[in-house]
Amino acid sequence: MKAHRIAVIPGDGIGLEVVPAGVDALRATADRFGIGLEFDVFDFASAVHWQREGTMLPDGWEETLRQYDAIYFGAVGWPEIVPDHISLWGSLLQFRRTFDQYVNLRPCRLMPGVRSPLAGREPGDIDFVVVRENTEGEYSSIGGRIFEGTERETVLQETVMTRVGVDRVLRFAFEQAARRPKQHLTSATKSNGISITMPYWDERVAAMTEQFPAVRVDKFHIDALVAQFVLHPDRFDVVVASNLFGDILSDLGPACTGTLGIAPSANINPDRTHPSLFEPVHGSAPDIAGRGIANPVGQIWCGSMMLDHLGHPEAAAHLLGAIEDVLAHGPEEAPLTPDLHGKGTTIELGEAITTRV
Amino acid sequence: MKAHRIAVIPGDGIGLEVVPAGVDALRATADRFGIGLEFDVFDFASAVHWQREGTMLPDGWEETLRQYDAIYFGAVGWPEIVPDHISLWGSLLQFRRTFDQYVNLRPCRLMPGVRSPLAGREPGDIDFVVVRENTEGEYSSIGGRIFEGTERETVLQETVMTRVGVDRVLRFAFEQAARRPKQHLTSATKSNGISITMPYWDERVAAMTEQFPAVRVDKFHIDALVAQFVLHPDRFDVVVASNLFGDILSDLGPACTGTLGIAPSANINPDRTHPSLFEPVHGSAPDIAGRGIANPVGQIWCGSMMLDHLGHPEAAAHLLGAIEDVLAHGPEEAPLTPDLHGKGTTIELGEAITTRV
Ligand SMILES: CC(C)[C@H](C(=O)O)[C@@H](O)C(=O)O
Ligand SMILES: CC(C)[C@H](C(=O)O)[C@@H](O)C(=O)O
Repeated sequence: MKAHRIAVIPGDGIGLEVVPAGVDALRATADRFGIGLEFDVFDFASAVHWQREGTMLPDGWEETLRQYDAIYFGAVGWPEIVPDHISLWGSLLQFRRTFDQYVNLRPCRLMPGVRSPLAGREPGDIDFVVVRENTEGEYSSIGGRIFEGTERETVLQETVMTRVGVDRVLRFAFEQAARRPKQHLTSATKSNGISITMPYWDERVAAMTEQFPAVRVDKFHIDALVAQFVLHPDRFDVVVASNLFGDILSDLGPACTGTLGIAPSANINPDRTHPSLFEPVHGSAPDIAGRGIANPVGQIWCGSMMLDHLGHPEAAAHLLGAIEDVLAHGPEEAPLTPDLHGKGTTIELGEAITTRV
Repeated sequence: MKAHRIAVIPGDGIGLEVVPAGVDALRATADRFGIGLEFDVFDFASAVHWQREGTMLPDGWEETLRQYDAIYFGAVGWPEIVPDHISLWGSLLQFRRTFDQYVNLRPCRLMPGVRSPLAGREPGDIDFVVVRENTEGEYSSIGGRIFEGTERETVLQETVMTRVGVDRVLRFAFEQAARRPKQHLTSATKSNGISITMPYWDERVAAMTEQFPAVRVDKFHIDALVAQFVLHPDRFDVVVASNLFGDILSDLGPACTGTLGIAPSANINPDRTHPSLFEPVHGSAPDIAGRGIANPVGQIWCGSMMLDHLGHPEAAAHLLGAIEDVLAHGPEEAPLTPDLHGKGTTIELGEAITTRV
């Protein structure tokens, strides 16, 4: 079998610390299952590249990355050197769009051994997946300023929803829901306040609902939904949301499962016309970068999602199982990182998981 | 002293159930403190009015309401009869704009006797206020559809921020922070993703920061902020946010304090050129309407905020104290409603508070 070619982009901050742990765990899993993986590491999409070249990405980045089967990404952003909107629009958000990774899939699961900030919640109580639209919506680059610097200064930004864009992510989410035991889908909306785009979103959800009669569908306004995540996280199965709402829900969900440090995400191009990208939900975390205490679990779990995407569901499940086994030992017995109430380091926790593989 | 004239608008659903409890508690407080309050009740801004007249508001509503010192509002929305975006834009959102109620002030406090869904949190741990921009931002009515009904269908909606609109709400929030013991302000942003309006918001925050050197300022992207609300709700004092982000945070905050049912909000025109409006954070709640079990505390607490706004801080504090006293007895001893884990009804809980006044 031909080896899969993986482009590795550690990026900034703790991305540089957790990516090596992720690559080790991936290598070990690949060895065990006889899967060929070849890694090439790139230093673009980072503040270092920005300082050296004045751009986030080199010329020809698109052709370079297009040759890979997947992109294994750390985190980007270092606001002291380059403003966030420039670094992100110049790299991650650019990848999502150029490679038409229109689904951002983000599982939220309360793991054994991990303490939830929610009272009385046990593993099994929280286990849902957020399907986030990943190319349009509130994240648009259309807009600007008029009367700059004066009292009349006015700033506009357009939210853009297209039928193609909305329907394809809804279809993906409904398909996911149809395959899961609960067959339940929740749509995040705000059609009472955001009165043009959001009623449109609701309309397309209603249309798609007819095509999936087995799926039970409900909808919540985003304000009510964030409250429900905290009060009744057990009521969710698949949650589908626009770009911004998906962003918010997929940080809140992991926070309810104890820490953002364990949460993975897959930026998927389901049509496989371009490589998909796998990155943890957390960012570059300048506040803890350089201290060796970042949690590598989100990055390693991303590796599991990547193996699944590359056609190796057993290897993916095995790697996820290794993560669960190590976490289940809890902060007393396993070298869990401080966000998991332990005293372990990035390297120790990464090695514990890789050994378990 | 001249009596204050209050326009009472119960609206829909549980608004009709909790407003009478609120008016009773207000009357009792006013009597005790020798404050004159005159109430006139209106049945517009409701599904009933929509069915009867085909509009949410009657002709001349603006002149009618302008004669009042404040509006005491329940909740509006009954989607079986009128779509939410029509009922809301035809009433509540209309009031906020026409009466230039540019601040939406929403306290979040974990009350004694109320169980937080967050593990180990006690009264005192959660006590902050959300200052929400209330007239512009993501809630705009500019936009529309093209290529309707075809595969090319595209829907646009404009977010609008003005210097006047952003600065005035920021100034209000900084002033609040400057007056509180912690002097701490957190700004909600998303300037990494929403790359035109949100960097502008950050810029204005930075400019205002210079005018309030005593206030400690930090900012979080909205995704990180919702996670912080759950993981570290004790770290907040004043949180300032755009219209949409404020909406989200001011539902999540109260959820972290146990229930949306106790949360009040004040839609304030700080310049006092038009009446301000006081309404609970919760909506019309069609799912529990008509059963007499809605929590009246949010509505009653609104009455306290209204008394404060009308220049009666002592009476306001007394009414809030009465609420706290009753809640502190807990669901075993006080007739708390089901959302507070009790068996009480709206009427019983309302009477308990009014008696305590
Ligand atoms: C009903 C709705 C339009 C409203 C809003 O989003 O402003 C409500 O959620 C609120 O918070 O007052
Ligand atoms: C860094 C930021 C632009 C990004 C986003 O908002 O999409 C991140 O929060 C994420 O969720 O991947």
